[in-house]
Amino acid sequence: MDVQERPLLALTLGDPSGIGPEITLKALLHREVFALCRPFVVGDRRILERTMPLLGEAAPTIFPVTDPAAGLFEPGFVSLLDLKNADPRDCPLGEISAVSGNAAVEYVFTATDLAIAGDIDGIVTAPLNKAAMHAAGYTYAGHTELLAERTRAEKVSMLLVGPNLKVVHVSTHVALSEAIARVTRKRVEEVIDIAYESCVALGIPDPLIAVAGLNPHAGEGGIFGNQEIEEIQPAIDAARARGLRVTDPQPGDTVFLRATKGLFDIVVAMYHDQGHIPMKLLAFDSGVNVSVGLPIIRTSVDHGTAFDIAGQGVASEESMLAAIDVAVKMVRARRTSAS
Amino acid sequence: MDVQERPLLALTLGDPSGIGPEITLKALLHREVFALCRPFVVGDRRILERTMPLLGEAAPTIFPVTDPAAGLFEPGFVSLLDLKNADPRDCPLGEISAVSGNAAVEYVFTATDLAIAGDIDGIVTAPLNKAAMHAAGYTYAGHTELLAERTRAEKVSMLLVGPNLKVVHVSTHVALSEAIARVTRKRVEEVIDIAYESCVALGIPDPLIAVAGLNPHAGEGGIFGNQEIEEIQPAIDAARARGLRVTDPQPGDTVFLRATKGLFDIVVAMYHDQGHIPMKLLAFDSGVNVSVGLPIIRTSVDHGTAFDIAGQGVASEESMLAAIDVAVKMVRARRTSAS
Repeated sequence: MDVQERPLLALTLGDPSGIGPEITLKALLHREVFALCRPFVVGDRRILERTMPLLGEAAPTIFPVTDPAAGLFEPGFVSLLDLKNADPRDCPLGEISAVSGNAAVEYVFTATDLAIAGDIDGIVTAPLNKAAMHAAGYTYAGHTELLAERTRAEKVSMLLVGPNLKVVHVSTHVALSEAIARVTRKRVEEVIDIAYESCVALGIPDPLIAVAGLNPHAGEGGIFGNQEIEEIQPAIDAARARGLRVTDPQPGDTVFLRATKGLFDIVVAMYHDQGHIPMKLLAFDSGVNVSVGLPIIRTSVDHGTAFDIAGQGVASEESMLAAIDVAVKMVRARRTSAS
Repeated sequence: MDVQERPLLALTLGDPSGIGPEITLKALLHREVFALCRPFVVGDRRILERTMPLLGEAAPTIFPVTDPAAGLFEPGFVSLLDLKNADPRDCPLGEISAVSGNAAVEYVFTATDLAIAGDIDGIVTAPLNKAAMHAAGYTYAGHTELLAERTRAEKVSMLLVGPNLKVVHVSTHVALSEAIARVTRKRVEEVIDIAYESCVALGIPDPLIAVAGLNPHAGEGGIFGNQEIEEIQPAIDAARARGLRVTDPQPGDTVFLRATKGLFDIVVAMYHDQGHIPMKLLAFDSGVNVSVGLPIIRTSVDHGTAFDIAGQGVASEESMLAAIDVAVKMVRARRTSAS
């Protein structure tokens, strides 16, 4: 692939006090990343320099850029858009810091604006810390809310991508009793649509969407609960009437395994743990979060800032590598559909 | 180990129309089984003979016994207690049959009675078919109810055992809304006790018991539900006061992974799918069901009669082998505690 064809991706450094800088630099030690894309970091030079000793002799050379496309996209170099906003003295490792929280938000703002302007192809985000962000005066609940506001997106959903599994959720961070209440025909049909859009965005044009049941054995014909009959099946029928390929409600305890074997392209999970249990088991270090519904391409690592191990050199870059990989797939799918 | 020291185990053939006979014979082709125990089959000679062609040249020789202890426990032979109750013409493969249903129940009755009498060390059951059992006039919901009645056990629970994971459930086959209602301090404490007894029965004398939360992130301090605070934590505190080693409520999406890494000996799951999703993912072909609370040792394969593949020779004996292995461990643990 011609260099200019490779997707130009911003890697936001995340909270400077967490493992973001470490996993970002470690990911860029993998030569194959440069064959896939043109990655550049949005961050602070001093924070990268503080992180370099963790990499030993492999530490790359920083190549500063003001125009990302003018970066040096070769192994051994890290192209950096330096926001000069994180003095290491104000960003202690493993601690909540307002300076770190502010810096992390500014990295995402800058990368997002570049993507909206069409100057870059997508963004891959390292983790930020909610408490640090709040200490800096930003009240977002997380990346998703920040990105939704910055891009003026009305409805954003989270797609989880593992090595052999893709999952979207009817609900996530609510009590289980509230999660049950949210299993309505309207919401399930909406999430089936999100599943469809997610697959298309990942280059799967006519996906087979599996819908998990809410109750054991998907209710076993109404014996163990009736949401499958009253809410989920009608949503499935409505989606099918619009031409989507959707399964009947599947038992939660086997649908994920069957999806990993290739029987389904994506699974609609009914609540947080139903989808997160299999994802964490299968892809603890390599899961990827994807924001679906944004006008820009954005993927993220599937873990937090891990303050407990920040600066130790033991953080795994697997999830960051996987997030870059998924972003590249999404850029390609978008180009294909546009051409 | 001296031959007579090896546990004497009944393998019940299960429903003759299902995969039970096939996986039982396949398990007995593994030479190492005879080094572990003295296995004999409770079944019907004609059903075994019908199954032999699936094994090709490896097919063993049937060695009929009336006294199980007098069996021939060597590779190449299958000791059989022949109940002469399943004419193959009345037991069509892959179909519900009253004769098959009746035969399967009688195998379990006979094996259970031998175990109660102390003539054998334990029983390992191949799957029976609920509809066939009902066609035969037995109204049990499954093995568990049958065994509870036959042994006059008052409280029987199901333990799931995978390669690196043990799980007990607060509830199983009820609607999710009902499962939430069953997360009471009393019931959770009861299941913590079952977890403890399960570990002791498996030879783990002072287990560390992990308790999963009900809500996402185990409720995150009450933000996503309050059962952790109001019901689960008090149950944990009460169990600790009695000397048990129990964790605080753990996020459901990571507790199983951490258990597989050896951090906990067993997990108390709050509902069916929470425990079954990880178990099926980790041990789809090799899971074992154990009845806890019976006066006898009983393990079982963790799957059904699989009528759709009966007689095809493609069924996996992995779960049967694992069930034999767990039964042997339980016999050893009982002998150790008795000595």
